[in-house]
Amino acid sequence: MKYDFGMVGLGVMGRNFILNVADNGYTAFGLDLNQESVTALQNEGGDIAKVNASTDAKTFVENLSVPRKIMLLVPAGRAVDMVIESLLPHLNEGDLLIDGGNSYFKDTDRREKYLTDKGFHYLGVGVSGGAKGARKGPSIMPGGSASAYKYIEPIFQAVAANAKDGKPCVAYLGPRSAGNYVKMVHNGIEYGMMQLTGEIYDLLRKSADFTNDELHDIFAKWNNGRLKSFLVEITSEIFKQDDDKGDGRLIDKILDKAKQKGTGKWTSQNAMDIGIPVPTIDIAVSMREISALKSERVQADNVYDRPSVLPIDKAELVEHAEKALYFSFICAYAQGLHQLASASKEYEYDLDIATIAQIWRAGCIIRAELLEDITTAFNENEELTNLLMAPAFVDKIHGTVASVRRLVSYAVQSGIPVPGLSNSMTYFDAYTASELPLNLIQAQRDHFGSHTYERNDMEGIFHTEWGE
Amino acid sequence: MKYDFGMVGLGVMGRNFILNVADNGYTAFGLDLNQESVTALQNEGGDIAKVNASTDAKTFVENLSVPRKIMLLVPAGRAVDMVIESLLPHLNEGDLLIDGGNSYFKDTDRREKYLTDKGFHYLGVGVSGGAKGARKGPSIMPGGSASAYKYIEPIFQAVAANAKDGKPCVAYLGPRSAGNYVKMVHNGIEYGMMQLTGEIYDLLRKSADFTNDELHDIFAKWNNGRLKSFLVEITSEIFKQDDDKGDGRLIDKILDKAKQKGTGKWTSQNAMDIGIPVPTIDIAVSMREISALKSERVQADNVYDRPSVLPIDKAELVEHAEKALYFSFICAYAQGLHQLASASKEYEYDLDIATIAQIWRAGCIIRAELLEDITTAFNENEELTNLLMAPAFVDKIHGTVASVRRLVSYAVQSGIPVPGLSNSMTYFDAYTASELPLNLIQAQRDHFGSHTYERNDMEGIFHTEWGE
Repeated sequence: MKYDFGMVGLGVMGRNFILNVADNGYTAFGLDLNQESVTALQNEGGDIAKVNASTDAKTFVENLSVPRKIMLLVPAGRAVDMVIESLLPHLNEGDLLIDGGNSYFKDTDRREKYLTDKGFHYLGVGVSGGAKGARKGPSIMPGGSASAYKYIEPIFQAVAANAKDGKPCVAYLGPRSAGNYVKMVHNGIEYGMMQLTGEIYDLLRKSADFTNDELHDIFAKWNNGRLKSFLVEITSEIFKQDDDKGDGRLIDKILDKAKQKGTGKWTSQNAMDIGIPVPTIDIAVSMREISALKSERVQADNVYDRPSVLPIDKAELVEHAEKALYFSFICAYAQGLHQLASASKEYEYDLDIATIAQIWRAGCIIRAELLEDITTAFNENEELTNLLMAPAFVDKIHGTVASVRRLVSYAVQSGIPVPGLSNSMTYFDAYTASELPLNLIQAQRDHFGSHTYERNDMEGIFHTEWGE
Repeated sequence: MKYDFGMVGLGVMGRNFILNVADNGYTAFGLDLNQESVTALQNEGGDIAKVNASTDAKTFVENLSVPRKIMLLVPAGRAVDMVIESLLPHLNEGDLLIDGGNSYFKDTDRREKYLTDKGFHYLGVGVSGGAKGARKGPSIMPGGSASAYKYIEPIFQAVAANAKDGKPCVAYLGPRSAGNYVKMVHNGIEYGMMQLTGEIYDLLRKSADFTNDELHDIFAKWNNGRLKSFLVEITSEIFKQDDDKGDGRLIDKILDKAKQKGTGKWTSQNAMDIGIPVPTIDIAVSMREISALKSERVQADNVYDRPSVLPIDKAELVEHAEKALYFSFICAYAQGLHQLASASKEYEYDLDIATIAQIWRAGCIIRAELLEDITTAFNENEELTNLLMAPAFVDKIHGTVASVRRLVSYAVQSGIPVPGLSNSMTYFDAYTASELPLNLIQAQRDHFGSHTYERNDMEGIFHTEWGE
């Protein structure tokens, strides 16, 4: 009796994913160098005929049915290469390796070529949903060879989350690193949405002294409306969480220094490489960096005055905040999807944006009611480059813009930093401006560097000897 | 008779630089594959005993005194490697090669090692000032081996611009790619300052219909005050330039699609790699990208309404604008210098920030009266990490912040995108905030990914099972 599915790395994500596979009627075998992780999985699995594990690579490989389907959930980077090398001597041609971590997409391109040349199959697969998602149904974003994907498709469809319409949140996305690229941008959007949620929280607490209970109620209410989303839901939960080490709520004890693991940064850096503006994501990366400079911030706070927070009606503020969050969530998705549409050409992924929006509807961290509408928008128009131009979204945005203007203006005058909101606002204002002042920048570049310019009234490339 | 100095690449920059060398009493020999460029230089030089050139690498090398001092001013990238390879067979150990282009700093690290291993000397040198600067006195930012720099120091000191105090704008900055890195960040700051100037122009023209003549007067007046700088100066000139192909001023005929050559993008990307926030530079890169999407912008402009521009008193607007530009220029310098201070540790450049500010005071594109004060600030406190914390700058900033708040708020409500100003504002507001809402982001990360958090009331790393 051989097992259907192999998993290397029995940390929180790997263990939960393999148990999920077993729940869905497939037998599964795990590999981890740590004996405790192996034993824990055997115990939790309950029946070693269904879920088993070993610390030995050879035993692991020999227990899998051919062609083997082996997934890796190990930290991105060197660990992936090391695991691959340790497995290779035991594999047969035609076996399938699946990297399920947040690998940098160019690493996946390299590994896919290396392993394909040796006669193996390779998939780079984004998995989102955190520990709970892995256990109960993640969103899965596979890239690599379409034929190899067929081997694993039934298992992935069984374990993935299902959207409201019953469709599993997994689909073959494209060749080579397409899956990792999509997951990278998913995380970039996630960075943006988390920063935006944080700014709304900051505005509410600093402007009108909302209590944590009120904040809980506000986010819980929003989660019953068009803002319904995983991040809004857990935010409402967070405000309710009591401090297990003292009095009051835990949120007030957590240090405001945010960490990052790199996928948001990669999204911004690669967007710049392919020339797509994603300022809501960029600023989310910057704000994590600024947050890390805690001691400098405390010092600077002592040196500078802060303006008084302007008075504002609580109910009015909450209404503006809901609209601003809705608007800026749309901007974060619009920027990320714009980047994907452009990357699809740049890297010849041939991505279908509607499919991507569709498999993000459940299971993943950025799942949201909004993604139903986004899926519809891209299904209605496959050529849509920017979500802001989808007719249904023009209407949605029209009703919110005035509130965003009001709130950004209020925050700037009150000294409360809302860079995610303001970058979303100016992204919108710039993207919808037929006339920008970049003619001056072209004039400056031609003035000091003879870099030439184009004209708005005739074709051609021009240079002027300025000042003569 | 051998020549003192060799130049490869006789384009606008190379030709002007070599003529500058000759003006200062050194003999110089040029190399270019294009016979026309060679002849043009011979003619312009006037006396081939002082300035000569050839299309042949061997002739070129043989005409230089040993140890040879050969500078390359060719496009960054593959061309640099190709020129190096073409010269190598003709060189002797101990000869010095100097790359004066905008090479990516990691390329310089690679080339420096490659050539040093072969017994040659190598410098990566930033040169700023455009065509006119190269001819009349650029700012020069050399990096590489300190002993090799001694060979070229007299020539560089002779050709560099002189600051008000008579000091030449060149100084040895650090090992390996230090010079290219500093030049990269110089260009990032330049991107920021150009974007900020553009936004002020946009605000003035869209809010109160200032004419080009009025804009000229405003910028010319500013250039006589604390905003005195090369970019403000050429901006005032630009508004006066008549259209040589039609009626009116040229600025109104230039297409608002800005190009970029990569150094601004590298600055942002590398700042993210070393974890330093430079949002004013980031958004300048994004705005060039958005500007390039001209046809999408025109389409989007048709679909969305724009709010009416709020009425504002012209004189009041100009006063706020001067303060906002001054404030945001400070933020652009602060971010770039912060990045340099951090890169100095990351890459072991051992940079002296005061020296860098000092050699930016004349010759380069970002030269400005402000750099006198910045030089003083870093001379007074070598440990200063962020310009915002220099006592002299606390005072300067105090008088401007209210105007920035007023102007950003005005622009957001009037639908005029000022992302450079608003990112400078929120950079300031976030950097001076002892309390940011990133505690919520840490709570979210721990909730969905068990990423742990720190507390503000006790040491340690914590994880909570949220909602239980």
